[in-house]
Amino acid sequence: MIIGFDADDTLWHNEDGFQASQREFESLLAEWANAPEIEDQLFEIEMRNMPRYGYGVKAHTLSMIETAISVSEGQASAALMAEILDLGHALLDRPVELLDGVVEVLDELADLTLMLITKGDLYHQLSRIDSSGLKDRFWQTEIVAHKDVPTYKRVLGLHGIEPEHFVMVGNSLPSDVLPVIELGGRGVHVPYHVTWSHEQHEGHHEAPVIQSLTDLPSLLSDWEIH
Amino acid sequence: MIIGFDADDTLWHNEDGFQASQREFESLLAEWANAPEIEDQLFEIEMRNMPRYGYGVKAHTLSMIETAISVSEGQASAALMAEILDLGHALLDRPVELLDGVVEVLDELADLTLMLITKGDLYHQLSRIDSSGLKDRFWQTEIVAHKDVPTYKRVLGLHGIEPEHFVMVGNSLPSDVLPVIELGGRGVHVPYHVTWSHEQHEGHHEAPVIQSLTDLPSLLSDWEIH
Repeated sequence: MIIGFDADDTLWHNEDGFQASQREFESLLAEWANAPEIEDQLFEIEMRNMPRYGYGVKAHTLSMIETAISVSEGQASAALMAEILDLGHALLDRPVELLDGVVEVLDELADLTLMLITKGDLYHQLSRIDSSGLKDRFWQTEIVAHKDVPTYKRVLGLHGIEPEHFVMVGNSLPSDVLPVIELGGRGVHVPYHVTWSHEQHEGHHEAPVIQSLTDLPSLLSDWEIH
Repeated sequence: MIIGFDADDTLWHNEDGFQASQREFESLLAEWANAPEIEDQLFEIEMRNMPRYGYGVKAHTLSMIETAISVSEGQASAALMAEILDLGHALLDRPVELLDGVVEVLDELADLTLMLITKGDLYHQLSRIDSSGLKDRFWQTEIVAHKDVPTYKRVLGLHGIEPEHFVMVGNSLPSDVLPVIELGGRGVHVPYHVTWSHEQHEGHHEAPVIQSLTDLPSLLSDWEIH
């Protein structure tokens, strides 16, 4: 049995940093628009840029710059642009902060074969994996562009894993849980306290939900996996 | 025997687009500095950002914005920033243009096991591989962050390839040729007509050089590989 873990907002904090950064971004543009208007505009621009840029801090920074130009109707100064670049740098340089209990859970599951599967910018994700101190806990680490059925199929195939021998654990229903279930594996949902609008999922599902990663060992034990 | 191919400037044009884009960037900043000054400043900023951003068009665009702020001493307008974003979009949206003879060479080598190993931004490289029309020619395609000895070791290991059964073909000596030779494989250098300063390599080496990919089949035949 192989247990796959998502990383951002499953093993370490991520979205809270983006949201704090967004509050700073909104204050930079406060003379031109209020926070909800800026948030809507940024989200719209990020979604429009998604096919071209993909996910990650660099994409986010470029979309913030585009939003600043648009919201300010071309009045934003070079100094403001420099502050936006700094917001991006701060997100990239942010130290990895593990969620509570992660090390203990990985200790407890150390005799299982663990895998890390994370989505996003190759360079930033590699740097976070390296600085997390967790890399050696995982048999394999994979950085993927999208977490969809074809991607899980490719990654599981590459490592010779049958879906029925695979459990994926993560905070995103559409990225971590549902595609793995569709493929014939099992998914475990561990919600994070904030969710990026793009990852929000409405609709019915029957995947097990645990409130914290520390509940994972007993769930796996119920499944007679551990 | 497995034959690995680099993609950018080996299978399709890349650096020429960056250089044309750089000429446009220099003309946007012409009121503040001359082209060589801008080029030096951009290169310095790109190298400083490399550990944080990695390779790719999004990184390049963010470095162009930082360069514009610096060269203009904070005078660059939001309209100019929008033109820089457009330069980045044009590079990302540029259609894949194959080098002469690529399809014929891949046809000729179709009974060998071919692999594509490219470095850079995950999203942009995936999009180029998809739109190249060449994906089905390759047994495996890998997008990596760095082309160094540990990376080749990991990728070859993942696919169960012994280095002595591996030939890597590409336009960059430090990325495509030398690390594979160091690992015990073979490398073939196919120079592109322009080379990014960062990939330039001085110094002695004994790797075979071919002037065009169309010379690859006869080299492989000399090696009794094909």
